[in-house]
Amino acid sequence: MTKKELKVAVIGGGSSYTPELVEGFIRHYHELPIKELYLVDIEAGSGKLAIVGALAKRMIAKAGLPIDVHLTLDRREALRGADFVSTQLRVGLLDARALDERIPAAYGLIGQETTGAGGFAKALRTIPVILDICRDIRELSPDAFLLNFTNPAGIVTEAVLKYGGVKTIGLCNLPIGTRMQIAGLFEVEVSRVDVEIVGINHLNWTTRVAVDGTDVTQALLSKAAGAGGLTMKNIPDFGWDSEFLHSLGALPCSYHRYYYLTEQMLEHQNEQLKEGTTRADVVKRVEAELFELYKDPQLSVKPPQLEQRGGAYYSEVAVSLMTSIHNDRKDIQTVNIRNNGAIPCLPDDACVEMNAVIDASGARPVQPRTPIGPQIRGLLQVVKAYEELTVEAAVHGDYGMALQALTIHPLVGSADKAKQVLDDILKEHAGYLPQFK
Amino acid sequence: MTKKELKVAVIGGGSSYTPELVEGFIRHYHELPIKELYLVDIEAGSGKLAIVGALAKRMIAKAGLPIDVHLTLDRREALRGADFVSTQLRVGLLDARALDERIPAAYGLIGQETTGAGGFAKALRTIPVILDICRDIRELSPDAFLLNFTNPAGIVTEAVLKYGGVKTIGLCNLPIGTRMQIAGLFEVEVSRVDVEIVGINHLNWTTRVAVDGTDVTQALLSKAAGAGGLTMKNIPDFGWDSEFLHSLGALPCSYHRYYYLTEQMLEHQNEQLKEGTTRADVVKRVEAELFELYKDPQLSVKPPQLEQRGGAYYSEVAVSLMTSIHNDRKDIQTVNIRNNGAIPCLPDDACVEMNAVIDASGARPVQPRTPIGPQIRGLLQVVKAYEELTVEAAVHGDYGMALQALTIHPLVGSADKAKQVLDDILKEHAGYLPQFK
Amino acid sequence: MTKKELKVAVIGGGSSYTPELVEGFIRHYHELPIKELYLVDIEAGSGKLAIVGALAKRMIAKAGLPIDVHLTLDRREALRGADFVSTQLRVGLLDARALDERIPAAYGLIGQETTGAGGFAKALRTIPVILDICRDIRELSPDAFLLNFTNPAGIVTEAVLKYGGVKTIGLCNLPIGTRMQIAGLFEVEVSRVDVEIVGINHLNWTTRVAVDGTDVTQALLSKAAGAGGLTMKNIPDFGWDSEFLHSLGALPCSYHRYYYLTEQMLEHQNEQLKEGTTRADVVKRVEAELFELYKDPQLSVKPPQLEQRGGAYYSEVAVSLMTSIHNDRKDIQTVNIRNNGAIPCLPDDACVEMNAVIDASGARPVQPRTPIGPQIRGLLQVVKAYEELTVEAAVHGDYGMALQALTIHPLVGSADKAKQVLDDILKEHAGYLPQFK
Amino acid sequence: MTKKELKVAVIGGGSSYTPELVEGFIRHYHELPIKELYLVDIEAGSGKLAIVGALAKRMIAKAGLPIDVHLTLDRREALRGADFVSTQLRVGLLDARALDERIPAAYGLIGQETTGAGGFAKALRTIPVILDICRDIRELSPDAFLLNFTNPAGIVTEAVLKYGGVKTIGLCNLPIGTRMQIAGLFEVEVSRVDVEIVGINHLNWTTRVAVDGTDVTQALLSKAAGAGGLTMKNIPDFGWDSEFLHSLGALPCSYHRYYYLTEQMLEHQNEQLKEGTTRADVVKRVEAELFELYKDPQLSVKPPQLEQRGGAYYSEVAVSLMTSIHNDRKDIQTVNIRNNGAIPCLPDDACVEMNAVIDASGARPVQPRTPIGPQIRGLLQVVKAYEELTVEAAVHGDYGMALQALTIHPLVGSADKAKQVLDDILKEHAGYLPQFK
Repeated sequence: MTKKELKVAVIGGGSSYTPELVEGFIRHYHELPIKELYLVDIEAGSGKLAIVGALAKRMIAKAGLPIDVHLTLDRREALRGADFVSTQLRVGLLDARALDERIPAAYGLIGQETTGAGGFAKALRTIPVILDICRDIRELSPDAFLLNFTNPAGIVTEAVLKYGGVKTIGLCNLPIGTRMQIAGLFEVEVSRVDVEIVGINHLNWTTRVAVDGTDVTQALLSKAAGAGGLTMKNIPDFGWDSEFLHSLGALPCSYHRYYYLTEQMLEHQNEQLKEGTTRADVVKRVEAELFELYKDPQLSVKPPQLEQRGGAYYSEVAVSLMTSIHNDRKDIQTVNIRNNGAIPCLPDDACVEMNAVIDASGARPVQPRTPIGPQIRGLLQVVKAYEELTVEAAVHGDYGMALQALTIHPLVGSADKAKQVLDDILKEHAGYLPQFK
Repeated sequence: MTKKELKVAVIGGGSSYTPELVEGFIRHYHELPIKELYLVDIEAGSGKLAIVGALAKRMIAKAGLPIDVHLTLDRREALRGADFVSTQLRVGLLDARALDERIPAAYGLIGQETTGAGGFAKALRTIPVILDICRDIRELSPDAFLLNFTNPAGIVTEAVLKYGGVKTIGLCNLPIGTRMQIAGLFEVEVSRVDVEIVGINHLNWTTRVAVDGTDVTQALLSKAAGAGGLTMKNIPDFGWDSEFLHSLGALPCSYHRYYYLTEQMLEHQNEQLKEGTTRADVVKRVEAELFELYKDPQLSVKPPQLEQRGGAYYSEVAVSLMTSIHNDRKDIQTVNIRNNGAIPCLPDDACVEMNAVIDASGARPVQPRTPIGPQIRGLLQVVKAYEELTVEAAVHGDYGMALQALTIHPLVGSADKAKQVLDDILKEHAGYLPQFK
Repeated sequence: MTKKELKVAVIGGGSSYTPELVEGFIRHYHELPIKELYLVDIEAGSGKLAIVGALAKRMIAKAGLPIDVHLTLDRREALRGADFVSTQLRVGLLDARALDERIPAAYGLIGQETTGAGGFAKALRTIPVILDICRDIRELSPDAFLLNFTNPAGIVTEAVLKYGGVKTIGLCNLPIGTRMQIAGLFEVEVSRVDVEIVGINHLNWTTRVAVDGTDVTQALLSKAAGAGGLTMKNIPDFGWDSEFLHSLGALPCSYHRYYYLTEQMLEHQNEQLKEGTTRADVVKRVEAELFELYKDPQLSVKPPQLEQRGGAYYSEVAVSLMTSIHNDRKDIQTVNIRNNGAIPCLPDDACVEMNAVIDASGARPVQPRTPIGPQIRGLLQVVKAYEELTVEAAVHGDYGMALQALTIHPLVGSADKAKQVLDDILKEHAGYLPQFK
Repeated sequence: MTKKELKVAVIGGGSSYTPELVEGFIRHYHELPIKELYLVDIEAGSGKLAIVGALAKRMIAKAGLPIDVHLTLDRREALRGADFVSTQLRVGLLDARALDERIPAAYGLIGQETTGAGGFAKALRTIPVILDICRDIRELSPDAFLLNFTNPAGIVTEAVLKYGGVKTIGLCNLPIGTRMQIAGLFEVEVSRVDVEIVGINHLNWTTRVAVDGTDVTQALLSKAAGAGGLTMKNIPDFGWDSEFLHSLGALPCSYHRYYYLTEQMLEHQNEQLKEGTTRADVVKRVEAELFELYKDPQLSVKPPQLEQRGGAYYSEVAVSLMTSIHNDRKDIQTVNIRNNGAIPCLPDDACVEMNAVIDASGARPVQPRTPIGPQIRGLLQVVKAYEELTVEAAVHGDYGMALQALTIHPLVGSADKAKQVLDDILKEHAGYLPQFK
């Protein structure tokens, strides 16, 4: 592929994460020669866009690179002819997230941004916006890759795969985080570690680990039992039981704590709520602090405080993928893509999270080494069925599908609670759910 | 098929249900010419066997039929050359059932004989006994059909299909009960009603109903919403929500209340337990009363009180199946059989409950009319995965598989509780669980 | 189902087969109460329609039944409100059939009406006409069942299933003929024989035979080896080799001779052609004689000579199917229907020929007892792939798909011959192939 | 992976190809540090082994590398502790090959070493020998990779996958040859070309080609139509028709000429045979000349004449695979491996030829981009079914499966010819077919 000059559009460019992404673009400029970087946001985000955009320009100027940064509220201008489109938007901002956490909690359920009833609500709000972006991409940059980071990334990516009509790959920093944590457990460089990950976004299992090509999966399970640090910033660090891990035969991801350690997680949640805090509140405070830092005209690098924000490796993931596509690299990354039989116990048109070869044409699944046993399969299938129903509910504004989605979700677990929570969600978020009118 | 004289062996022949079965044999003698009827039981059941066996003999004498009734503790004698073997045994008797109800309840979970952690415990106790019976059948009557009624009938039948090496069909009175209740709702003869049932034992969905060949599924869902009586004797009669039923697009079975209406069911259970009663206690009392009646040497018919016992239509189901096999009838019945792709979202070697053509060679699935949507699929798959794990745990005495089974069961729902409940089960039922030694 | 009065439309009503069908309607009137029988034909067939229609009226009058027979060239009038539509049309009449036999023969290939390049040509001519009929049915009698007898019946039915948008079942007299021949070999009443047939139209295998419910498949294979009479009127009666049959493990159908005994069949064909006769010529003469008979105003029954025509049991098959649908009978018949996984080695949307339960809603596959081994699978799959390509070619007028279809057909066998034969077909039948313009 | 010193065993080390392989080992020594190279042969090959082994030693000495070359007739010594085992044996030597070419030709069929009845005969002779080698490997070097080049490589590899119990990958120089020819057509370096190959050995299709990451498949089909050189040394260079290629949508492999251009190939074969030559005769002469050259004690490089032999790139393929495994390289190569659903229209346990990621654990399929259409699927499935039957026939000495295998092979095409050819094969090769005794 001739090294042409690239145009990248970042939807939700006013996000506090943007400096992370810009730092990645700078570091990888030699292999990802971006010429035009569009940061686009909505009217409500114009203030933040101005602040973070100015920082981005200072960072690039300091690096001495010929990347033109454009700040705009005109999404169509940003998308026209783009090579890559990245989304990091949040419909309803952090106030909506606080509701996603509080509404389920009021019924004794897990309230979380991406999982359970909270993630469900976020999906309902986000999918119509993303599909609207897809309409523009189809018209203005039909060859662009849409890299979707917007949570719940698996559900949103499935909606795009089924209804968006654009080339898309869903991304998450969890797989790379897992790989880094495993490298830490084995005290080796991350490049020496290979992980085989299967499942769906925020519900994946690491079914095999190799260090220098040698299978060390059993050793990993022994090391991981009870070990701390095997989680994301935003998830309490409850340890795994050794017998449980070995009979599971795989390392669950951080979010599995909501499913496997529900009581502990609920207890933790309720303590937090008693103190009056949701994760949304924490993030709000962190973001306010970050934007104060960003305003400093002397600042021309990513401030270290950003790493506390929870999105570690986010830039790494996005830039690695763009780089491998642009350079037709044929390396293996863990991404969210159409299944097509790669995980035989899930529908062909499901979005799955797994290892794939990345080249100029996108991502293609690599066949996992081992069949998925029933201990993984059962939970995987029921959550995927929930996701399918959620996509249908979000796209068509279908109350019945929404009710069925929540009913079968393991973190809701009954039709009665599902209905109560659903009615609250539709009422509280009504402004962002026009499809249910 | 020449109308040869048949030999039938009833394992657990001392059960209070036996008069029901004998009544069926009498009524259908003209098409199911049984010559030898063996009622076999274990030493501990010899007293009940004598009582119920004497009643059986009086019933047959009164009907004037040439059926020879044999009462024996020698299972091999009963099995030798049998055409049909029926199981209605209960490992650990009603005391074990009481534990199955109480252990889960102590952790705030549903305690039930066939579903959830209670059904799991029963499966662990029952499967080794059934597989031992299969060893005898393979040797003594390899052409016999094993008709398995023993609960959890789906799991036990799956164990036989995978490890028993005999011809088997699993049976339950729930499908015929559903059909009768639907006939009642439409106020028509049951023979005019066809039901399409898909799923697994005690977790099936009626996805289509026809009266006189005309599809009345939507009308059924409307009638069923809120209607009483749509359940078995032993399950509280909470009504279904109309919106829920219509978006589900199918009629759930009675046991679905444990999954869809968990809170109400738990509340009901806890009230019962507060009053000091489990279902096992109720059954114990009923059985004691029945055996008092059975002792009456004047009694030579099935006493009407037996119908209160909960096994309505049990005889109907068993005798219909034997009759259709014996007469190569090619009619359609709802049975538990190997899937082989009939329900594509479940493994080929899973035991499924669905409509099948019954002929001299056994049962073959009839392809359901409609694909199974995600609202049914998700729950079905996770419970089936639990069943697969339970079969492995029961056959191999595998603690890890047992732990994983309970962890993913929707009525347990976390690894922590699973471990606590499992450890209690293994301790309390230790005498019946030699495979875990 | 209330016994309402039925309307039946027979497209191609002027066919010489019609008296056969009418005789069936008369014999089964008590269970298939037809009120209106429309015989419809095209202008070119109006003479024959008048003759055969008059005979039909005399037959019904003699039987004293209140069936109104209508003769018409107005297809829409015939279809309006019909309960059953039956097709027995021949696009291009027997002259086109003669070409179907001669064109392939000119290249040293089998020339046959339903198989190979001849059947391919007939499919190209027929599918557009049938889909045009479907358009009328969708508008005028959307609840009607289209019973398709038109050859190649499997390919035409697949086209209707994929593109027709009407309820359809494909029919052939071959399966019932097979069952009758097997009954003959065992010297028992046909009602005592069950056959399990799997495959596709004119390429099915009888994989299991039971007499009175007892499996006699191996005995059948022994009896069938070398036996005469195991074929249709129009296929030479070359016997099967015993070793071949036993290693195949199933009884091939008559048309398999074209595939398994190609040299003998080609030799036979070439001898016939040397004498100047094609099967089309024979049929032409037979038909002429039949119509002479039909003209006789004294004739009011089906003349016995019709049975020489080759369509034995045709009426039996059609009337049995209508009767089972009308009476919601739930019996098992061998029909051509959508696969949906019933034969797992073929695509879900393929038309397959297999046993199905027939009720008021149509036909649903019964799961075959045994998996299909590679000796059957390979030939079945390649011919089905040919059929898929033929449907696409016929519907879209796609030259490339037509070329690929013939190339992979085992009776053509190379791209070079495929192209030559295809070009001849397109040229010779141009008047009937508007889709290739 | 620590760069340990490797042991490689070459079964059939006396082959004329060995210098090719040795040259590859020399060229890649820096990344494939072989310490022990065992060339093993049978008694009958000891003369050739001495000659070619001496040359191998001179080549390594000249290169100044510390590779110890061992010449031995003791296979077990060669296998003990090996890291890689490569097979290049020919059961029955070239005389048997001559029969493989002449027997089918006598019936008017294609006679070819790897395809059709000739390849079938070779499979029957080879599989028992290879499975015997597998027994030794399981005992003496259970962690070794068996790299199988022995033709028919796909069938032999399938036999090993099903019955061998060792880690194996089947190899062929055809895929790399295809890639090189395509690079030639586009006049670019081969490293800039990616090919997506799907199918089975000697019957694969190149379904997509990219140059520098850009899809150029349509351009390839246009260039390939009529072009020369798109074949192996041993296959006549008949060109492809443009309409045919474009409707196929993929580039067939060289061996497809036997299927798609059967008449031309037969004609060519018959001309050759009239002149009294088979390919075996040509190879015999070439080999004799090569061994004359090899004897020259001055020769210490691979003589250029070897490239005329037909096995171009053979060394490249073998050494690339060993290198990627040894270095855990995770690059993509086209290999023969277990399907596991990667090509959904073939059985899971079939051996398929396709792109795979190669790492220390072996090869895992990369999901092809496009579904396989019926024009490819049909031929692929029937030939794979033939291969399955051939494996069963070869392993179990099953006459019936052998008969069915040949019957469905498109290059045999009828049961009559199949039986004649089979009986000739069993008689002529009797000494090498003990399993049919």
